[in-house]
Amino acid sequence: MKRRSILKKAKRVRILDLVREMGESSRGEIAREFSLDKKAVSLAVDGLLEEGILAVSGYRTSRAGRRRELLSINGRHGISIGIDLGATHVIGVLSDLAGVVLERAFFEVRPGLPMEIILEQMKTIAARLLSSGRAASRVRAVGVCVPGFIKPGEGISLIAENIAGWRDVRIRELFETEFREPVYVDDSSRAFAAAERWLGHGRGQKDFIALDLGYGIGLGIFSAGAPLMGADWRSGEIGHTVVNPDGMPCACGNRGCLETVASGKAIARQAAEGIRAGKSPLLRDLTHGDADAVTAQDVAMAATMADAFSIEVIRAAGVAVGLALANAANILAPSLVVLGGGLVSAGSTLTDTIKEAFHRNCMPGIREQARIAVSALGADASARGIALQALEIVFAGA
Amino acid sequence: MKRRSILKKAKRVRILDLVREMGESSRGEIAREFSLDKKAVSLAVDGLLEEGILAVSGYRTSRAGRRRELLSINGRHGISIGIDLGATHVIGVLSDLAGVVLERAFFEVRPGLPMEIILEQMKTIAARLLSSGRAASRVRAVGVCVPGFIKPGEGISLIAENIAGWRDVRIRELFETEFREPVYVDDSSRAFAAAERWLGHGRGQKDFIALDLGYGIGLGIFSAGAPLMGADWRSGEIGHTVVNPDGMPCACGNRGCLETVASGKAIARQAAEGIRAGKSPLLRDLTHGDADAVTAQDVAMAATMADAFSIEVIRAAGVAVGLALANAANILAPSLVVLGGGLVSAGSTLTDTIKEAFHRNCMPGIREQARIAVSALGADASARGIALQALEIVFAGA
Repeated sequence: MKRRSILKKAKRVRILDLVREMGESSRGEIAREFSLDKKAVSLAVDGLLEEGILAVSGYRTSRAGRRRELLSINGRHGISIGIDLGATHVIGVLSDLAGVVLERAFFEVRPGLPMEIILEQMKTIAARLLSSGRAASRVRAVGVCVPGFIKPGEGISLIAENIAGWRDVRIRELFETEFREPVYVDDSSRAFAAAERWLGHGRGQKDFIALDLGYGIGLGIFSAGAPLMGADWRSGEIGHTVVNPDGMPCACGNRGCLETVASGKAIARQAAEGIRAGKSPLLRDLTHGDADAVTAQDVAMAATMADAFSIEVIRAAGVAVGLALANAANILAPSLVVLGGGLVSAGSTLTDTIKEAFHRNCMPGIREQARIAVSALGADASARGIALQALEIVFAGA
Repeated sequence: MKRRSILKKAKRVRILDLVREMGESSRGEIAREFSLDKKAVSLAVDGLLEEGILAVSGYRTSRAGRRRELLSINGRHGISIGIDLGATHVIGVLSDLAGVVLERAFFEVRPGLPMEIILEQMKTIAARLLSSGRAASRVRAVGVCVPGFIKPGEGISLIAENIAGWRDVRIRELFETEFREPVYVDDSSRAFAAAERWLGHGRGQKDFIALDLGYGIGLGIFSAGAPLMGADWRSGEIGHTVVNPDGMPCACGNRGCLETVASGKAIARQAAEGIRAGKSPLLRDLTHGDADAVTAQDVAMAATMADAFSIEVIRAAGVAVGLALANAANILAPSLVVLGGGLVSAGSTLTDTIKEAFHRNCMPGIREQARIAVSALGADASARGIALQALEIVFAGA
């Protein structure tokens, strides 16, 4: 794609973004906001109205008595599918352009499943959502998010180290062949941040970070209102910041990464060890004595039930996360830190400890401006984010 | 300033930036690069030519036989002053628009000097440069960079914690009153990164980080070709990322910050302790036995002379810096890491250790794409960077 057309698309995306954020907007307001030529804005808006992406939702009369159209997103017009592949789940949503979820589908992914089966699960979910009555034939795009590095442009998932054998998966090609819709691929943590930006705490925030704390740990970053991608779209690997140089070996090959202490994977591993060592009768009972079946969710639950061992594990995780987040905030100076991912909804022991450790380690002058909020978007956040990202890209280029 | 005019200025800055990077550029190339209307570009270029900021440096004949003007920066046209205040120095440069230094001035700042005297030193340097024959009356702007938080818009230096008593200094107001030139104020580490972007390793790099390792430690960040400022321009406080939660108290109020181990200040403190404890006869001799007079430069020099104690101190600093840089790189995914500041030119023990520790702690997949380079811009880098930043702002708005 030529740089020129990318930037033309960027203009359409910015217009859609602004209208979504304001709820309603006039052509004049859009032109002023972006310091764009009124004629250029009107041309772009006419295109978006004609395609049905924007709708005229009302009128406002100016002081001079002129009647101005108010534009808003036509949620109904555009529908997309968002698929979020995690180490333990495949979640799919059917989302409209306003971010409203029309349908949802879910598969559990068990550790060690072969790549082919996981891909089949993903396709099955996409097919089920596509054939839903609510989709009709209005689906315009499919977004797929995966943990780890991707190859921008080609939509290849290079590696997801928490999924055994997952390497160089040509997601865009596979899904475009199967479903004949444009496919957009990005990292799950950036998709989570996009969901927060459009639908959650990130609305109206130019500089914020969104922590995706699940089986792995990632960070989505918005800087000056745009997602920070880094070279080759590799930003956000907070799970591999080193919190203890003498710590345990990590799947990435280094030592003492945050993920060795605070990820769902690490918490479950510590809990299994604890059960075997007889340190937590409660966890043993919760798992019917099968130490290998224990999950981080179990540990979080046991912590809220005052299990001393579980509290200790969760607190250690929270301290490490708070430290890593504070270090990221010292560098990025965000106005908001969103805590999200599967683990943050499992009781407040974890989030309280994260907040304390963040506050203790973040530099004065940075911490006062960095509000911490817990995501309210739930388990579907990344799927919703990638669905909206995919739609934006498609509409930008229509 | 209205958003509209800020963006109009941004267009002029982008044009100047591109022409500087390309060396020479045609109107058509500029329009294509930014996907801007040809007419809009031509209007902006005409303005820049009329003001003498751009010059026609040649012609190129297209395949269709049409002769096209080649535009380049008219270095002679614009001259500015850059003042860099550090904890141990005030450096001033007279720079032209192409970044060529025409004059230089320097004062040592001794720890504990009252703020009023430091300000007088800064003004004296500016006045000396302004009255130089080479400045004639062509100086168009004054840039001032300071370590630490500033108040964007008002040009107030809020706090420079390594300079005793430095609080809420109205730099812009003081200098505009004195010199009747537009004054631009920013953080020194961001000014260093700007110098690298325009004059050093950062040329042509969209995503890079520049470490400013001196008496304090800061990080300048470019993301997608633009400086990352963060909320209220507070980005880049890598010196206060915590490398050891149980470490020493830091001037910022927290514990175990990178600056407590690896800054010029921390290295000098450790060296003074070492001299008193009789651990380094070489350092004692270098300082004539005055432990309090030892500087980080002395330690770096002693390390290159194989002084075991100094090597140990420098290595510990390098390990901590490499870790903090790796953690920043994991989050930002830069294609380049520039090592700069007063300490990196003092022997390779420090830079070699930083590189090793960076490589050990940076995640595979990130470290392969993040080339490390040592700055070649020397002690004047930040002063040159802030001089260019100030000129860009002024020309953008002329």
